Amino acid sequence: MRKVAIVGVGMSKFGEEWTRGFRDMMIDAGSKAVEDAKLSGSEIDAMYVGTMAPGSLVGQDHIGALVADYMGLTPVPATRCEAACASGGVALRQGYMAVASGIHDCVVVGGVEKMTDTPGDEVASALGGAGDQEWELFMGATFPAIYAFTARRHMLEYGTTEEQMAAVAVKNHANAAKNKYAHFQNEITIDTVMKSKYVASPLKLFDCAPITDGAAVVVLMPLDKAKKVCEQPIEIVASTQASDYLALHSRASMTSLNATKVAAKKAYETAGVKPSDIDVVEVHDCFTIAEIMAIEDLGFFPKGQGGPASAAGKTALNAEISVNTSGGLKGCGHPVGATGIKQAVEVVWQLRGTAGARQVKGAKVGMTHNVGGSGATAVVHIMKNEV
Amino acid sequence: MRKVAIVGVGMSKFGEEWTRGFRDMMIDAGSKAVEDAKLSGSEIDAMYVGTMAPGSLVGQDHIGALVADYMGLTPVPATRCEAACASGGVALRQGYMAVASGIHDCVVVGGVEKMTDTPGDEVASALGGAGDQEWELFMGATFPAIYAFTARRHMLEYGTTEEQMAAVAVKNHANAAKNKYAHFQNEITIDTVMKSKYVASPLKLFDCAPITDGAAVVVLMPLDKAKKVCEQPIEIVASTQASDYLALHSRASMTSLNATKVAAKKAYETAGVKPSDIDVVEVHDCFTIAEIMAIEDLGFFPKGQGGPASAAGKTALNAEISVNTSGGLKGCGHPVGATGIKQAVEVVWQLRGTAGARQVKGAKVGMTHNVGGSGATAVVHIMKNEV
Repeated sequence: MRKVAIVGVGMSKFGEEWTRGFRDMMIDAGSKAVEDAKLSGSEIDAMYVGTMAPGSLVGQDHIGALVADYMGLTPVPATRCEAACASGGVALRQGYMAVASGIHDCVVVGGVEKMTDTPGDEVASALGGAGDQEWELFMGATFPAIYAFTARRHMLEYGTTEEQMAAVAVKNHANAAKNKYAHFQNEITIDTVMKSKYVASPLKLFDCAPITDGAAVVVLMPLDKAKKVCEQPIEIVASTQASDYLALHSRASMTSLNATKVAAKKAYETAGVKPSDIDVVEVHDCFTIAEIMAIEDLGFFPKGQGGPASAAGKTALNAEISVNTSGGLKGCGHPVGATGIKQAVEVVWQLRGTAGARQVKGAKVGMTHNVGGSGATAVVHIMKNEV
Repeated sequence: MRKVAIVGVGMSKFGEEWTRGFRDMMIDAGSKAVEDAKLSGSEIDAMYVGTMAPGSLVGQDHIGALVADYMGLTPVPATRCEAACASGGVALRQGYMAVASGIHDCVVVGGVEKMTDTPGDEVASALGGAGDQEWELFMGATFPAIYAFTARRHMLEYGTTEEQMAAVAVKNHANAAKNKYAHFQNEITIDTVMKSKYVASPLKLFDCAPITDGAAVVVLMPLDKAKKVCEQPIEIVASTQASDYLALHSRASMTSLNATKVAAKKAYETAGVKPSDIDVVEVHDCFTIAEIMAIEDLGFFPKGQGGPASAAGKTALNAEISVNTSGGLKGCGHPVGATGIKQAVEVVWQLRGTAGARQVKGAKVGMTHNVGGSGATAVVHIMKNEV
């Protein structure tokens, strides 16, 4: 099995992109990534794209071929992967396997979602397809409701407070304000969150990631070849994935994601690192409670301590562990299928030392954590700067 | 890179399955495949599923986790792949890569589509997402219309006739009548086809594959391990894929699929075989004209000779080349995401010599050919019986 490195990254401006479609955003992100990799494009011999619900949102499936077509990559094999909000993560893992296996030598992996052209209730319905449609959405449980169950239970079991959850949003907005690609460019205060309207109690508007349009792309090569063409190849030292029961009610715990724990354990073993070795991590904060659970389940803080750690600023830029320097899903935005790839783009920038105002000092080891639905899929990648 | 073999196969009865949902059909096919592989299930360490449009058709995405959940495979990595009607084929190729790379040792690959619970116009709309939605479906070009363009052009360029196309449907119904899993169990005549109503001239009702519910599953292992646990492992000796421009109007030819030709060329090279070595092939006959193009583009007959060859019976069971012994998409049915996997199931049965009344005598080398949309994706697999 070959070692695999990321040699180029790019992303579109995340936000409500009223003047840009699915195709425009992918071309934007893709051309930046190919240019960043200093490739002409002819080296690319396969393509993956993660996207969740283009059929429901914009009436278009067959996204692999579409993106290959519009990126000028025809006739390379082009495959769409989907695992709800972890679609980007699973696409990255398939691209990793394609290179690791020796089957492909230069693989482009994109993630994209166009969400704002669709009426809000249809978006909520499409996103509900990430959970158990027959047992959750059909009964009225949209995603804010499902994560509200989780938050309420976390509060009961561990004493987590709404103010602690609010601290996650405040920190992620602060990071996003330093990221020109982020959906939100403004800082907020605890008061902003606490005074915002309840979406599904205890989750308020500012506890929820926004509906966002965007695309992100990475270019993969075997590490040995990457070292010849790239100044700072970022090696993927672990690429792991796990599943859990689709419906929240089927799981052993409502306050911990087993898929995250299983994928993280295997990732740490594969990479030969431990949580304290991670300098920068992008976690899946679709809701503030999700970040609190993630930093616990990934082993950065003991179970139940995610809330207090967040409130104490331990996850801020250059604090104990720099969490969601991009702004996360909350601040940078959450174009569903693009999120897992955007996480990788941010970690690459951090490990190269080119993250500007939000640079984590001396970052050597980074991690991405991408979750599908309410936790039925988790994908973890660990990356290192090979220079 | 490790060699990969299929050690177990299973499928649900294809048809209008009014009493069975998405989950039921996958459990049916999956349990048959795992039983066929003589596994307990605990050996399985990853899962792929090909499905095209469950979000649009039944409101459910995140199909990887769903299927893993209902098949009792949680917490294995579970990933959905999509390439329109080639979703099964691309899923099989990802499973192949996962085993070939050494990352996974026992991988289940399924394909499924539940289509008949959805009103016909919504199905047509969802399937239109396999083409270029903005430039084809939006202008009114549904899939029968797109393939009608192709058929009309093939008739103009090569003199192909409606009777020759009808011969494809007659042959595929004859094969389906010998397959207990097939949607249609009845033979038809040229007259049946010729007297059926036009759907999109020159294509009539009996030139079109039906809307079908169904699931199919295969189990993959490294060849060396497969030989220890399996009496007749079927080696996948080539797994290739190519893309083409999404919209028909962008392509160099309307009567030949470049993606098929690129994928087939690479498959023949990889496997070290030529068209005349193939004993049995499942090709993508979503419309009769598609089978005629396929047997030309795959190199079984010269360009333009697919029609006369079909009319002359050269593609019948145990004739020059046995094409679509399962009944193909026309006779066995076309539950979109399941088709690519069903093709593999049929070829495995043929190469094992267990295909009963439709057995191809002495079949040693088989091929599957799965197309997405009007040809923007093609996936080719070549398989051999290793005993």
